[in-house]
Amino acid sequence: MAKAVMTVARQSMREEIVEAALDQFHSRGYNAAGVKDITATAGAPKGSFYNHFDSKEALALTALERYGETLRMRDLADASVAPVARLRAHFEFLRDETVGHGYKRGCMFGNFGTEIGDHSEVLRVGVEQNLVVWTTLVADVIGEAQRGGEVRGDLDPATTARFVVNAWEGTLIDARATRSADAFGSFFALVFGTLLTAPAKAPGEGGADADGRRSQRGA
Amino acid sequence: MAKAVMTVARQSMREEIVEAALDQFHSRGYNAAGVKDITATAGAPKGSFYNHFDSKEALALTALERYGETLRMRDLADASVAPVARLRAHFEFLRDETVGHGYKRGCMFGNFGTEIGDHSEVLRVGVEQNLVVWTTLVADVIGEAQRGGEVRGDLDPATTARFVVNAWEGTLIDARATRSADAFGSFFALVFGTLLTAPAKAPGEGGADADGRRSQRGA
Repeated sequence: MAKAVMTVARQSMREEIVEAALDQFHSRGYNAAGVKDITATAGAPKGSFYNHFDSKEALALTALERYGETLRMRDLADASVAPVARLRAHFEFLRDETVGHGYKRGCMFGNFGTEIGDHSEVLRVGVEQNLVVWTTLVADVIGEAQRGGEVRGDLDPATTARFVVNAWEGTLIDARATRSADAFGSFFALVFGTLLTAPAKAPGEGGADADGRRSQRGA
Repeated sequence: MAKAVMTVARQSMREEIVEAALDQFHSRGYNAAGVKDITATAGAPKGSFYNHFDSKEALALTALERYGETLRMRDLADASVAPVARLRAHFEFLRDETVGHGYKRGCMFGNFGTEIGDHSEVLRVGVEQNLVVWTTLVADVIGEAQRGGEVRGDLDPATTARFVVNAWEGTLIDARATRSADAFGSFFALVFGTLLTAPAKAPGEGGADADGRRSQRGA
């Protein structure tokens, strides 16, 4: 580590700052995370911050983009996995991340959206753009699942994706406030056990409905 | 107003501080709202804050409780309004509040939950307790609606209420990030048009299904 720092070029020092910023903005929030602490954690020389970023806001936007890359959104387009299972695995991965952090941290989109979006146009737009990318990918999976008969066909994919992603963001608030997985249980039961499943299937007919029931148990 | 301030007893000065705190914590967030600014806005003498509150955290908890009182939760138990219409009116009221604030501020439960709950046990528990009260009232409305045949009977009221409240919190994040009512449209369409409505109703059968459709248009 010390060796890496010693051989650092400008670009790798910038990278250290971004990584420290991602960790501190995520765990402490925008206002509580200070440029001084971030720079110190990155091992950057005092006063060197503005060689790399114009402002704390600009660094936070870069950290937000980097955070988006950790959500494995590309897995949502992995055609080798059946669409509903793929969507479910995506949210299970995100759930496991939050559980792994002891029900802390949550999602940086939601955190920045609630804390700083009203006060920074740059970060509000950053959150908006990330939500749009995410929601579009989820909508594509829902559309694909509808064509395969896995999801009820009367739902509008874009409207539904938006609702599901928003429900996820609120579920994280609940999970953090209660420090428990119960909120995730509600999310998986309602989204995969009720909302997306085709209505009016006869009992034992299998398919999407059976998947929904299995989903509830696994939540 | 000046007259009222001049006749203040200790209790009414405390009240001025709570009102200023509610406004500033709601609009600026926990960390960005300073005790100094809050006290100044309240017109309280410099240094008098600790005569009224032990800490910023204690004031924030009081402000959070006061915020909960503004959500008109009691309307959820108003038996003179049919349950689904009552639930819908509740979220329409909350939607209108956010629209009225130019898509800013959001919900203090969600704001404190994301910004400060990880770092203040007092405020985390405060958010948790408020969410529990709210969710319990929503669950009661859903159960009542089920008994009247307005909501599909296979949903667990508590699990569903939790999901709906969480979806609402995430919807606010989206509405604020996009500065638009589209997120509310998704919420009302999916909750009232799909999730709660009984499945497998024949077209034109009326009742809950017709209500669901009317809900979608009104969103």
